Amino acid sequence: MQVTAGDLLQKINYPSDLKQLTEEQLEKVCQELRQYIIDVVSVNGGHFGASLGTVELSVALHYILNTPYDQLVWDVGHQAYGHKILTGRRDIFHTNRMYGGISGFPKRSESEYDTFGVGHSSTSISAALGMAVASRYKGETDRQHVAVIGDGAMTGGMAFEALNHAGIENSNLLVILNDNNMSIDPNVGALKAYLTDITTSKPYNRFRDDIAHVLTKISSIGPDAFKMAKKIEKSIKGTLLKKSNLFESLQFRYFGPIDGHDVKHLVRVLRDLRDIPGPKLLHCVTVKGKGYALAEKDQTKWHAPGLFDKITGEIKKAKAEKPQPPKYQDVFGHTIIELAEQNPKIMGITPAMPSGCSLNMMMKAMPERAFDVGIAEQHAVTFSAGLATQGLVPFCNIYSSFMQRAYDQVIHDVAIQKLNVIFCLDRAGIAGADGPTHHGAYDLAYMRCIPNMTVSAPMNEEELRNLMYTAQQENMGPFVIRYPRGTGVMVDWQRPMKAIQVGKGRKICDGEEVAILSIGTIGNEVVKATVELNNDGFYPAHYDLRFVKPLDEVLLHDIFKKFGKVITVEDGCIDGGMGSAVLEFMADNNYQAEVVRLGIPDHFVEHGEQPELWAECGYDAAAIIKQVKNMGIRRNAHTIAS
Amino acid sequence: MQVTAGDLLQKINYPSDLKQLTEEQLEKVCQELRQYIIDVVSVNGGHFGASLGTVELSVALHYILNTPYDQLVWDVGHQAYGHKILTGRRDIFHTNRMYGGISGFPKRSESEYDTFGVGHSSTSISAALGMAVASRYKGETDRQHVAVIGDGAMTGGMAFEALNHAGIENSNLLVILNDNNMSIDPNVGALKAYLTDITTSKPYNRFRDDIAHVLTKISSIGPDAFKMAKKIEKSIKGTLLKKSNLFESLQFRYFGPIDGHDVKHLVRVLRDLRDIPGPKLLHCVTVKGKGYALAEKDQTKWHAPGLFDKITGEIKKAKAEKPQPPKYQDVFGHTIIELAEQNPKIMGITPAMPSGCSLNMMMKAMPERAFDVGIAEQHAVTFSAGLATQGLVPFCNIYSSFMQRAYDQVIHDVAIQKLNVIFCLDRAGIAGADGPTHHGAYDLAYMRCIPNMTVSAPMNEEELRNLMYTAQQENMGPFVIRYPRGTGVMVDWQRPMKAIQVGKGRKICDGEEVAILSIGTIGNEVVKATVELNNDGFYPAHYDLRFVKPLDEVLLHDIFKKFGKVITVEDGCIDGGMGSAVLEFMADNNYQAEVVRLGIPDHFVEHGEQPELWAECGYDAAAIIKQVKNMGIRRNAHTIAS
Repeated sequence: MQVTAGDLLQKINYPSDLKQLTEEQLEKVCQELRQYIIDVVSVNGGHFGASLGTVELSVALHYILNTPYDQLVWDVGHQAYGHKILTGRRDIFHTNRMYGGISGFPKRSESEYDTFGVGHSSTSISAALGMAVASRYKGETDRQHVAVIGDGAMTGGMAFEALNHAGIENSNLLVILNDNNMSIDPNVGALKAYLTDITTSKPYNRFRDDIAHVLTKISSIGPDAFKMAKKIEKSIKGTLLKKSNLFESLQFRYFGPIDGHDVKHLVRVLRDLRDIPGPKLLHCVTVKGKGYALAEKDQTKWHAPGLFDKITGEIKKAKAEKPQPPKYQDVFGHTIIELAEQNPKIMGITPAMPSGCSLNMMMKAMPERAFDVGIAEQHAVTFSAGLATQGLVPFCNIYSSFMQRAYDQVIHDVAIQKLNVIFCLDRAGIAGADGPTHHGAYDLAYMRCIPNMTVSAPMNEEELRNLMYTAQQENMGPFVIRYPRGTGVMVDWQRPMKAIQVGKGRKICDGEEVAILSIGTIGNEVVKATVELNNDGFYPAHYDLRFVKPLDEVLLHDIFKKFGKVITVEDGCIDGGMGSAVLEFMADNNYQAEVVRLGIPDHFVEHGEQPELWAECGYDAAAIIKQVKNMGIRRNAHTIAS
Repeated sequence: MQVTAGDLLQKINYPSDLKQLTEEQLEKVCQELRQYIIDVVSVNGGHFGASLGTVELSVALHYILNTPYDQLVWDVGHQAYGHKILTGRRDIFHTNRMYGGISGFPKRSESEYDTFGVGHSSTSISAALGMAVASRYKGETDRQHVAVIGDGAMTGGMAFEALNHAGIENSNLLVILNDNNMSIDPNVGALKAYLTDITTSKPYNRFRDDIAHVLTKISSIGPDAFKMAKKIEKSIKGTLLKKSNLFESLQFRYFGPIDGHDVKHLVRVLRDLRDIPGPKLLHCVTVKGKGYALAEKDQTKWHAPGLFDKITGEIKKAKAEKPQPPKYQDVFGHTIIELAEQNPKIMGITPAMPSGCSLNMMMKAMPERAFDVGIAEQHAVTFSAGLATQGLVPFCNIYSSFMQRAYDQVIHDVAIQKLNVIFCLDRAGIAGADGPTHHGAYDLAYMRCIPNMTVSAPMNEEELRNLMYTAQQENMGPFVIRYPRGTGVMVDWQRPMKAIQVGKGRKICDGEEVAILSIGTIGNEVVKATVELNNDGFYPAHYDLRFVKPLDEVLLHDIFKKFGKVITVEDGCIDGGMGSAVLEFMADNNYQAEVVRLGIPDHFVEHGEQPELWAECGYDAAAIIKQVKNMGIRRNAHTIAS
């Protein structure tokens, strides 16, 4: 749905237009930009709070910098809507995150203003430093390089690695710390406390007041004392400014904290900073959701609220006639509490996604047993490993694509030591509107090559609960349970749990000629397909493997003895995934069969709704039907060998 | 070779024996322990400098702590030889790093004193925090948890993530910063400068002197002024101590810096720290190689010098009658310079392994184009991506097993954006004496599932050079070249380079009945095998695939049209690796053949010499011969179809 921009914003197609305005007009531009974001997001959806918090920063940066020659990297990118609107994408902004529309994140292929594709946290300083070092090498001394990074993203280890390196590279790098005290959920960790401390400036201010008081008294003693007092003041200031700051410890020049919503002040400061060489950090204090009262008040809820009535603030939900299946996230959230009530060894760990993965339920119910460790996937895994060495049973919940951040820790700290850490990989498979950075496409491939690992995926809510129950038993070793974003298929899901034999698949339906092997919730597309196929005279069998490691060899022997045609279906990459594991079984056991593997093909899949993308990738029910019809022969008689 | 320990050390089998000694005797224990390490390592090999630097720390920690109830985690573990000798492994220490002997790193399965298996850097704080939180949860309030971490390892992002979390967990955690200014190579980065700054205390000391001077003058004015001066001094001290320290910014209590070679002082400090609750950091200054003059002087060379004469310091090298093939590392080091001389876009990047991967040659020859970014694999990759966005061509050299640390950055920052970053994965395949943490077993599997990626492995030095030449051409996109630790096979290796067509394999020898497909340098074992097989009447064909992605489909069609029996050989994991890619090709093209896949099996392989481990895993020449004989039929006539 198209909405109209304000008078000034309407005329800003590119930053060159913005630069025509006077500084006095910038506040109005900010107001219009903020309103435009509210108008569009309320009717089209998307991330909300983050971009409201960076309206002034976006305007000031494009006003002062010579973009795209000057290079601007947005960390994560949730906050870059203002940037997108100001850089040629105002009139297509309503297609944000939709199939075929613009990406919700900066993306190099979308605009030359998007200098670096983002989505995952904490990459911006490394990327901008690379750009800055390249400019230095090329002799482009006038070129500016700016990374805008939130205080949440700053807790990610690679941001620290980048600061450590940038501190010794004399390149033209400005890091803007967008300090709003929030990730998607409230930030945690010592850094947050430290930044709050700087911002409210209590120790420094208190100290300054104390000293000022004493110095005033000294000064009153006489002119010599006055001179001495001045000397002390200078010395104290120098020392405090030089050494009191974490960023200055890392050889950045530190500026701030300043109000990130005062656009005129931002413009002044950014203009000054342009001329200061070397690594520098500007600390801006902003409010997530700024300018939309409800969003300021409940920042987690309004991170990405979906569609809403911008006047009443009512978040629109599809009205359900009858009870609906739950989200897998909530199944996880409820089930871990249920299990933890029975098993005192269970702990819950999330790196900064408590509301996203629903561990917030356990954090509320059992605060001493559930941990949000910050944006810190690597630490989350090894911290879990540490807990497991003491006989505890950690459920470490990390989105599938974010788990790529902790791949070494999974191998080195958990699998080699065979520790009983349970990895719940949320957002596995096609993630939807977040696009290629967030699709959990590779986990089956990158996990199943690791020794000692159990790799499973439930087909529905009951299976998820049973796998969680299974994994928390004694001596299970490292155990992956991967499941997708979104709602399940069972209204009556909260059934008593029972253990599943590790490596045991199950038959969903008998059939003939063609066997379909699926893993995970995409199996429900297979069910849809088989129902329709049956009506049409095709009778494929369907098996849910449940485990890609270990494989159910008994079941596979049965299948390959009986079927010469096999289709594998997975919501994951075809190369190296479950289908590939099945081919390995065949080779090792000398089976010959025609095998067609359906799954995510060997290219990065763009954003869109999950069903749109399953269809595009060729493994939704329709594609499965087509494949079965290609391979099989239509029957008249409904006689199926069992 | 067994050597004899000194009088005191001889009687110390476990820390309980150490505790029987008086504090006065500890210096002698340290002296004997240091001598024992020198004696054993000089004749058996192993890491050297790091453990000499932690002799006093090891003795003091086991003297004061109640290990193994109290939990001690050594980061990386190169420095834990003293710990091993004091905890039940003195008499088997000479088997260190040998096939069937003890591991060069702490390892849970080896001793209850080894609380956490290590090898890769920067994991110790996360692990120890997990242990400490577990103890808190269990109410074990008396239990101590100590992480010993070098200043190099402290630059790894996950150490920072762990500090950020630990700062808000009120658990009993002591981090000992073993500050010796070194990783394997000299440390780099802002943190190093900062720590040196603290240690030499110049700014604080200078400031304190300035102030003292002024305050003395003020005090002389009269009693009121004296009182005021005292007040100022107190205030300054409080503020500086509270806020001047990076670690205190993260809510750790900071102690030090202290001399890490003064065992009596260490004992006193550690005893005091035992009673201080919450997260705390002790900054110890040590010297890598302490007590062995040559090692103190050239710390990189003596990190792991091999065998040496402990008296003369002469490092023993096998004497060669004739010219020997070079190490692949040196081929890389020379070739990148050669290429960079021709192509001004080429840059070199290593995360803290300049001497290990031989990028030190380029750092010396072209300092402005070669970067050691510290122990920071994640940053190394995304920094390279940043360079690549500017049209530069970075060669990012990372050991295969360390690349697991940057898996997400490879996908998210390089592959999605199709940036021309060349990943040289050193230590690919079986790494040898470093064991399971260091084997580069999984790279073919975890890289080949990534879209846009080229994944290659050279069979010899000339191929490595040609692949490097190929990869640096325009628009090649992300490009992996994996090669092993150790020497190659060509004396005459420095030949003119030429481009290889991407995805093009090559035939090594014609044959009949059985085709052997190999990738990488393990192909030389296949060559050895075929020579012997030919003498014995077997004539397998041999193909070097060169690329696991993209596969050479033309070549594979030829092979599968001609051969019904195929053996794949790779120095990498069987599950999901090259053999698996070949099976996918077969399935997609409906070929039927008997395929046997040789490679690293589905368990973690221990340490030993590479040939020992290839044999154990069943893919050395002997195993290949056996496999061919199993599958093929002996011929009399030497007629081979070509």
